[in-house]
Order: sequence, then structure tokens, then C-alpha cells
Amino acid sequence: MITVVIAPDSFKGSIPADAAATAIATGLRRIWPDADLRLRPMADGGEGTLDAVLSRGGTRRTARVAGASGAPLDAGFGLIDNDATAVIEIAQVVGLTDAAVAAAPVERRSTRGLGELVRLLLDAGVRNYLVGLGGSSTNDGGAGLLAALGLKLADAKGRDVDPTPAGLAALAEVDASVLDSRLAHAHITIMSDVDNPLCGERGATAIFGAQKGVRAEAAAELDARLARFAALTERAVGRSAKDRPGAGAAGGLGFALQLLGGRVRSGAEVIADLLGLDAALEGADWLITGEGRSDRQTLLGKAPFIAARRAAAKGVPATLVSGAVDRDALPELGRVFAGCHSLAFGPATLEDCLANAAQLLADRAEQLALLFAAARAPR
Amino acid sequence: MITVVIAPDSFKGSIPADAAATAIATGLRRIWPDADLRLRPMADGGEGTLDAVLSRGGTRRTARVAGASGAPLDAGFGLIDNDATAVIEIAQVVGLTDAAVAAAPVERRSTRGLGELVRLLLDAGVRNYLVGLGGSSTNDGGAGLLAALGLKLADAKGRDVDPTPAGLAALAEVDASVLDSRLAHAHITIMSDVDNPLCGERGATAIFGAQKGVRAEAAAELDARLARFAALTERAVGRSAKDRPGAGAAGGLGFALQLLGGRVRSGAEVIADLLGLDAALEGADWLITGEGRSDRQTLLGKAPFIAARRAAAKGVPATLVSGAVDRDALPELGRVFAGCHSLAFGPATLEDCLANAAQLLADRAEQLALLFAAARAPR
Repeated sequence: MITVVIAPDSFKGSIPADAAATAIATGLRRIWPDADLRLRPMADGGEGTLDAVLSRGGTRRTARVAGASGAPLDAGFGLIDNDATAVIEIAQVVGLTDAAVAAAPVERRSTRGLGELVRLLLDAGVRNYLVGLGGSSTNDGGAGLLAALGLKLADAKGRDVDPTPAGLAALAEVDASVLDSRLAHAHITIMSDVDNPLCGERGATAIFGAQKGVRAEAAAELDARLARFAALTERAVGRSAKDRPGAGAAGGLGFALQLLGGRVRSGAEVIADLLGLDAALEGADWLITGEGRSDRQTLLGKAPFIAARRAAAKGVPATLVSGAVDRDALPELGRVFAGCHSLAFGPATLEDCLANAAQLLADRAEQLALLFAAARAPR
Repeated sequence: MITVVIAPDSFKGSIPADAAATAIATGLRRIWPDADLRLRPMADGGEGTLDAVLSRGGTRRTARVAGASGAPLDAGFGLIDNDATAVIEIAQVVGLTDAAVAAAPVERRSTRGLGELVRLLLDAGVRNYLVGLGGSSTNDGGAGLLAALGLKLADAKGRDVDPTPAGLAALAEVDASVLDSRLAHAHITIMSDVDNPLCGERGATAIFGAQKGVRAEAAAELDARLARFAALTERAVGRSAKDRPGAGAAGGLGFALQLLGGRVRSGAEVIADLLGLDAALEGADWLITGEGRSDRQTLLGKAPFIAARRAAAKGVPATLVSGAVDRDALPELGRVFAGCHSLAFGPATLEDCLANAAQLLADRAEQLALLFAAARAPR
């Protein structure tokens, strides 16, 4: 009997990771009705992370907090390990897909809601946090998060300032004396594949600002505000984080969370651990992974790459099936994957591939299984 | 060391079979530099047949004969077996791609040039003929072929009539007494996958007439002319052929050639024999075949199907790589092929696939080889 681990990421714009895994399994079953198929839909700390983690157990909850624009939002999160660990996908709290966010300029957006959520969880006794940084709409250096957790931000006259890029313009003093003391006992794992520092030419504003709506002419001033906020906050907290790799992730949430003691880990690595991918690979014959589009970026810690590396460590070949594969990257991808394949069965439009991804994926997996079976058959 | 037989058909509208085989080999070499790659570019009796046969030896020649329109043409043909056997692709004599043909209506087109070519070859002592029926522009029932070889066609007043559909309107008498007597010693193999009779609702005119320009309102009269021509000719020759399977191939050339003693065989089967495909498959690990577009028709004797069947007989798995694969046919194709794959690495236009077929094919073959190698590796 053949054992196949099925560990795709989501196919962005088309189907989530669990649907992708199910589709691949459907195709394989046509060839191997009795196969041991181990479905481990992946994620990389961004969109889909919560779904991936909860696919192995735990409960999904929501909490009403402020969205990035300030409008209230029922933010989804997860509890695992008998409610001892919270799984937070920041895209579900301060994400770009929140309809209210588009109306608020990035200078007015804040991560305050994330701090509110953490406070609620601290109240509930949760001390372990897995925070997926991806898809944020904010660029506040995590000021909102810290403010909601007790950090005092004041102007030169001692008046509170808004924990937003706009508010930070007037920032003169930071007081960490009433920062929630329970944070000292919290274990925060930051899921991020970004190694940028908070500020400077490789910083959050310079690299990721534009996609959130930071205008080019405003970038330098914004970056300077974050730098001053960070310097004052580091002094107040008595710890530094702004130059650490990943401080620039999620508009500076990477800075604030590291300042709170959080450790940055590759999102896909964390997910692979949570899903028990290594255990699933024990005795497996083959791993199939995939994603919406594969290129050289895939090799920079994306879920299919991590899945393939875990498989390689167990001597299991890993095949990639993606919506599209960048042919220019085939030489590099070919060193990692036992074949890089796509959904398309011929000339096809993007729309067609997106709309029929599940069926195409099942068909492609079936065709690959036919080859795999034939190659393995004794001659 | 791995041994792979590479036996694609041409990728119609894009690259010929030999270029396809070379591209596949290029991809496989990247994974297996020392592999024993046995290139056997295929054909099915239609376009590319001559190239496929001559890829294993023999000489290419041309002869000046009448094209289908009557305009002179340097028709290519091949000689193999130390010039004992002629290989004729009728598309190169009376084919649709001859520029002069478009100007002549189908009623005026004749296969006379094919008869002229056969006569030249008989003069040269050639007694074996492999004739690929595919891509013809004519619908003369083979009257031209037979007339050029000595069959007398006359009207009620004894005057010669043109061996064209138009000329046959006046046909009243057929005299086979001076038909080239050397034909009695000729062995003619007709390469065709068509089993239609000459006339009637499944006949040449009804089924294939339209693609040659037969107008719907003229079809019945044309069919009747061919029926009368065939009846008179059969009586004159003392042999019947018009109802045999394949008599309706190539506008009735299948009739005329069978009347001359020719035997119909699947084109791809003949080619497979000529290429020594069975011998190439001895000890092989894998066969890769392909074509421009694969669908249920592929299973009706097309080259990839024949190649796969020959492979199956030797216990060698056969994988299909085509420009496009009809997903609706996957259940049937999957019973024959160890995986049906396409050139596309994602959403792509037909133009892109046609223009880059060789590179895409090399890349796809490489990716399939990676999977094949991984599946075969001992665990």
C-alpha cells in the first residue's frame, strides 16, 4: 500500500489549502483506492494559517475588537492545546481585506485591535501566542498593539497621542510603567518570513509601505516617526528590537511583538510542526505540495519549500503542483522538487484555472499518480 | 542506467516529430546525462510520415509530376531498403498545402500526378510501395491515379474524359486492358486509419468532401459519379474494392489503391514497424510519446496510442505529453498512458504554446523525469 502526504498551501485567489488537499486526494484515490493519504494542508503564517492549524484540532473563536480603521470587527482566532495557546492571524484583525480599512488612510490605521485581542486572551489565562504576520494593512510600528496593552504615548504637553502614524507625529514621551505585566510570562511566536528591520531603506515603510497606500513623498517622514517611536519605546521598555530581522514585518508589528519577547520563526516551519508533518512523513512514499504560483520566492521559506525540505529529511520525494510555475525558476525548483507541474492541461486562461482549480488539481494529481505508480512497478 | 524510448508524433502547427523527440531528449538529458535515449519520432501515415521513415535511413528524392490542380510540382518521396521500397506521402503530391490547389475547385482536381509518380517508380524498378493517405485535396476516386497508369476513361462517344470529378460526369466506358501490367507485381501498403467505404452516407464525399471544398448541394451528384466510375472500373479490372474499409480514404484513393491490390494498414503501425519500435522497446524503462492535441481520437490508432500499445506489450510504461489534453478523455486515456501531461506550466495562450513548444517540451520532460527518477529510487 502506498502512503502519500498531501501538504499544499492555499491556491491564492482560488481555493484554500484544505480544499486543495482534498482535491489532490480525490485524484489519487482514483488510482489508489486504498492508499494511506495523510492530508496536511499548509500555510506560511499568512492568510490560511488559522484554517491550517485548526484542521488538526482546536476551536475557532471570535472577539469584538477595533479593526485597523477603528471600526469594530469580530476578529477570528483559534485556541489549541486545551485553550492554552492562541493562534492569531493578524490579517483577520488588521487585515487589508477588511472593508472598512479601504476608507481609512494608512496614516490613520492602527494595530490597537490586536492589543485588545491579546488583552482579552491574557484575561482568559492564555499565555502562549502564535501570531501570523501577513496581510496587514497597518504601518504603525505596532504602536497600537503596545498602547492597547498599556504603553503610554504622549506629546510634549503630556497629552495622549493616537497610536497611528498620524498620531506619532506629535510623540514626545513614552511610558512603559503600566504595560500589562502579564506579558512578562507570555510566550509569543511570531510567524514571519520577512527579515527586514523596522526602519531605513530596507524597513517596513520603504519596502512594504506602498502596497498599504503610503505615498512615496510621505515615506521618509513616516519612517522617521517610526524610528523616533521605536527609540523612545525601546528606552522605556529597556529592551531593543527595531534592528532585529523581522522587526519590519507587518508594518512594524514585528518590532512591537519582539519587544514583548516574541521570537520570529518561519511561518511554514511553525505550521509544519503544529500539523505534525514530520510524523506524517514517517514511512511515506511521496509528498505532494503546491500553491497558487511557484517561482524563486517559493524557495525563500514558503510552505511548499518547507514541506519539501521536511520530506527530504525523511527521504521522501516531494512533487510540486501549482496553478502556475515560473519556468525561469525550474533549474532551482528542480533541485528541491521531484517534478514541478501545473494545473493546466493545455492552453488555458487564468480565469479558467482559478475557477476550476479543484477539478484540475484532482485530474493532475491522478495523472502524476499514474506515472508514479508506473515508475515504481517492478520490471 | 535508464533507457527511454522517445516516440512522439508531430505537434501539429508547431514542431515536427523529430524536433519533438529531440526536445524531449534535451529535457531528459538534464536529469540523466548518461541515459540510453532511443529517439523514434513517429507518424501515422499523414503529414510527417516521410520524415519519420527517413529518420531511420533511406534517401529523399523528388519527381516532377502534376499536382492536384494540374500545375507541375516537385513531389518529395523516399526510397528505403536499398531503393526497393518507395515511401509516398500523398500530401506531398496532391496535398491541400500546395498553393496551386486553392485556385482549382475540387471538381477539377485529380490524383493523376500520383499515378505519374508511381509510373516513374515502376520504370525505376521499384515494386514495394508504402503510401500514406492523409492531407489529400482530391476527391476523384483515384481516377487520376488509375488513368495515369493506363486506365482508359471515355464518354459515350469514345472520347477521353478527364480523370476529375468534373470529367467523370460524362464517363460511359472504362477500359483496363492497357493498365500498367507491372502493377501486378507491385506490393502496395496503404497507410490509413479511415475505414469509410468509397460512396454512400459514410463515403468519401459525404464525410470528407466538405473539408476539400465540396459544396453540400453538389455532394450527391459527385457521390453518384464516383459510384458509377467505381462500378465501371471494378467491372473492367475484374476486382471489387469500393465497399472495402478505407476505400473512402483520401477522396477515394483508398479505393483505387486497393483495386490495384493494395492492403490497408494503420499508418502508425506501419511506421512503428519501419522504425523498429519493438526492438527499441526491448529492455527500455519508459516510453514518452505525445502529439499536438490528445483526445478520444488519440485512441483510434493515432501514433501515441500505437506507441503506447507496443510499449505495453513489452511491459514498458508509456507517458503522454501533448500540447493540450482533453480532460474529458482522461478516464480513457489514463487506461493507456502512465500519465497524460501538457506543455503548459500555467495559464498560457495557444500562440505561446505553439511558439515555444520545443522549450516547453524539454522542460516538461525534465520535470516528469524528476518524478520518474524519484519514484524509482529505492526507499
